Amino acid sequence: MGSAADAAGSAVDPTVLEALAAVVGAEHVTGGATAAAELSDYAHDEALSIAAQPPAAVVRPGSTAEVSAILRLAAGRRLPVTARGTGTGLSGAAIPRPDGLVVSFERMNRILEIDTENHVAVVQPGVTLAQLDEATAAHGLSYPVYPGENGASLGGNVATNAGGMRAVRYGVTRQQVQGLEAVLPTGEVVRTGGKLAKASTGYDLTQLIIGSEGTLALVTEATLRLYPRHPHQATVLAPFTGVDEVAAAVPKIVASGIGPLVLEYIDALTMAAITQAQELDLGICEQVRESTQAYLLVMLDNAVADRLDEDVQRLGEHLVSLGAADAYVLPGPAARRLVDAREKAFWTAKAIGAQEVVDVVVPRAAMPEFLRRARDIAERHGSFVAGCGHAGDGNVHLSVFETDPQVRYRLLRELFEAGMKLGGLISGEHGVGRTKKRYFTELTDPVNLDLMRRIKHAFDPAGILNPGVLLD
Amino acid sequence: MGSAADAAGSAVDPTVLEALAAVVGAEHVTGGATAAAELSDYAHDEALSIAAQPPAAVVRPGSTAEVSAILRLAAGRRLPVTARGTGTGLSGAAIPRPDGLVVSFERMNRILEIDTENHVAVVQPGVTLAQLDEATAAHGLSYPVYPGENGASLGGNVATNAGGMRAVRYGVTRQQVQGLEAVLPTGEVVRTGGKLAKASTGYDLTQLIIGSEGTLALVTEATLRLYPRHPHQATVLAPFTGVDEVAAAVPKIVASGIGPLVLEYIDALTMAAITQAQELDLGICEQVRESTQAYLLVMLDNAVADRLDEDVQRLGEHLVSLGAADAYVLPGPAARRLVDAREKAFWTAKAIGAQEVVDVVVPRAAMPEFLRRARDIAERHGSFVAGCGHAGDGNVHLSVFETDPQVRYRLLRELFEAGMKLGGLISGEHGVGRTKKRYFTELTDPVNLDLMRRIKHAFDPAGILNPGVLLD
Repeated sequence: MGSAADAAGSAVDPTVLEALAAVVGAEHVTGGATAAAELSDYAHDEALSIAAQPPAAVVRPGSTAEVSAILRLAAGRRLPVTARGTGTGLSGAAIPRPDGLVVSFERMNRILEIDTENHVAVVQPGVTLAQLDEATAAHGLSYPVYPGENGASLGGNVATNAGGMRAVRYGVTRQQVQGLEAVLPTGEVVRTGGKLAKASTGYDLTQLIIGSEGTLALVTEATLRLYPRHPHQATVLAPFTGVDEVAAAVPKIVASGIGPLVLEYIDALTMAAITQAQELDLGICEQVRESTQAYLLVMLDNAVADRLDEDVQRLGEHLVSLGAADAYVLPGPAARRLVDAREKAFWTAKAIGAQEVVDVVVPRAAMPEFLRRARDIAERHGSFVAGCGHAGDGNVHLSVFETDPQVRYRLLRELFEAGMKLGGLISGEHGVGRTKKRYFTELTDPVNLDLMRRIKHAFDPAGILNPGVLLD
Repeated sequence: MGSAADAAGSAVDPTVLEALAAVVGAEHVTGGATAAAELSDYAHDEALSIAAQPPAAVVRPGSTAEVSAILRLAAGRRLPVTARGTGTGLSGAAIPRPDGLVVSFERMNRILEIDTENHVAVVQPGVTLAQLDEATAAHGLSYPVYPGENGASLGGNVATNAGGMRAVRYGVTRQQVQGLEAVLPTGEVVRTGGKLAKASTGYDLTQLIIGSEGTLALVTEATLRLYPRHPHQATVLAPFTGVDEVAAAVPKIVASGIGPLVLEYIDALTMAAITQAQELDLGICEQVRESTQAYLLVMLDNAVADRLDEDVQRLGEHLVSLGAADAYVLPGPAARRLVDAREKAFWTAKAIGAQEVVDVVVPRAAMPEFLRRARDIAERHGSFVAGCGHAGDGNVHLSVFETDPQVRYRLLRELFEAGMKLGGLISGEHGVGRTKKRYFTELTDPVNLDLMRRIKHAFDPAGILNPGVLLD
């Protein structure tokens, strides 16, 4: 939603602003009657269908000690606190409370170390994926999480357990984070894990904080696993007559041992929209295009050029034997533009008027059944859904076109229920945030919810961290 | 310790035995005055340096509903409960309380499903690694965690976050578990995750239960990730003049993109002990053997035979350029026997009189420094340490030879402190259990310990699950 919907933040107690200024310096605090325009910059993330909400104040710490002091101050005054990276989240977890603080990590944006012996990076939460990619490339290493928005911050990635296209090979954020430094709502600083590939020394606090959407602790440093960067890449696009055929092909491609880097499906409508938006001609003849319901996009990489060529050959034959109309090896520039267009699918959906974007995750073999049920549900409501997704992971991204909020609520609830009945969950990588909280709390087993509430209470008995996100 | 040290379990209230019998059938309950011999089978795991302790009673449930009923009963009577798989743990986490119950999962030993579409196995906790390996092999798939004891149960593996030699390629248990069914100390059944490669839908209860050593919930079902089984394997053994040289070689081998399946170091003494114990002649000439302080054991595998041969060639050249005296490609039978001997290193250490075995984990580049400090610490106490370890993971397995318990306590405490000062933790894969609890609670930051205690309380306010393990 645009700034037109911004509600003014509550009037903030001037002594709060003074106390914050004493911690971080007055130039790093925004608040008060004259700051409305600046505060509105911190009023939203990229979530659709939810009103922006400016906070009472924004504070930009420069160090862990400052974050700790801010949280002690907030705890003492029972002020709600919402952490913010670069604001690219899709579920509203960075939308603050009108009476609360935004702790923006924009100044804590340093890569503290690229450790080439242990193959880890140590980063502050405000570091972006693009920044980390550039720094690791210089060492022939890479951080493999590509959630489709390279302006996203690592702090935000940790908070939502971000995934993306390469998760089929490398796993999601959860698999990359070896250690954290985080500040508890009491102001205490906790260090978990380390430059360690493994541990069995008490409860895994690292894993518990990952994906907790700013409700348990504020991450001030993350130790991330790096991998050798493979120099050779190839991209293959295979048109199929239906999503069932795509889904049936996926386990066979994985089992073949080719080890794809990316394994995405894109439905025909989404392909048309994203190629049109990017003015991209893939050179697929009209006849094939007309009989295609879904595309499989496969990327391979290898340290050895010859092996990549062999694998591309094998993959192509395999795809055709699995029912693909053809297997197009895309030239480098077209491949890059298509992957880029796929990454921007969210923006295309937004541009053509989608009211909501969801990312239900199901067992990957259940993907066609889920898509069938999703189409049926949408049709029954006179609505429309289309999408693409991480076929190797069963993570289905659907754009939902339905302007009536009441109808949309019922439609989304039925979509989530359909995914859960197939053994899935509401979100694979976007998180619950504010946009899906109602569905999450209505549809999740009360035993799980109660346990999560008790865990929340164990970290944050006063409930100051991101109230209204994930749980009530 | 042997059965000579067994203390008798407390006399058990006969109404408890009757109530348990009503749940699982009398033939699946052991307890009472005449059962001492049977109870002593459940009095220990494989931990050294800790007295066996028979429980008051043993109950062998056949289903999740029975586990739930047992926990309701235990909660009502405030009976301590210790879960037991096959009793192969090394830290005493399966040693019960004299006034408590052992819940043995020996009857819940079925593989419920091998799902070849989603590449997952669904298993009960009593299933062993050997059983799962056989079942997955039939489908060309494999479960990659090999902690060196194929008789270990999956329930136990989940409880300690088991690792093993292949973790350098595939990660540890934590990376394989996609979902759990578990029973809370209230008897409530919680289902977490699913056949899902990823999720961002609330706190990750799956990850929190993994590695919690039976103190948070009893796992009754696990959904495990499977991988294509590569048909071609090769094993290369490289002698080095020092551990420093081994440790320096490790990141370079990882960065080369060869992607080793196994990357182990074995010190000269341990190599002599395990090859002698297994009557294994590796054909390494005496001159090389005498100048060798440490061996690097590398296993490669591939779906394509030619690629494996090329990689072995490249690896051999690489190892020699990194300072190895030579690179021996071991013939299949010798390779299998050496890996087997390495897996049995614990038994060899026990046989030659080690009083304790530890598995400190450090950043892998800190391994030589840790080993130097460990030798110094041992020397200062007039003691002796030797070992081997997962070089790719920085997980150092040391056998400790020191008969005086007071000296051993100081020595172990200094070893753990040395590891922690280098950024490590007390245990990489064995767990804290009972044997390392004192060190863990003395050396861990109180902020972390308090948080863990609050999490324990959130799951188990009455404290009936494995009291005395991990935390007090």
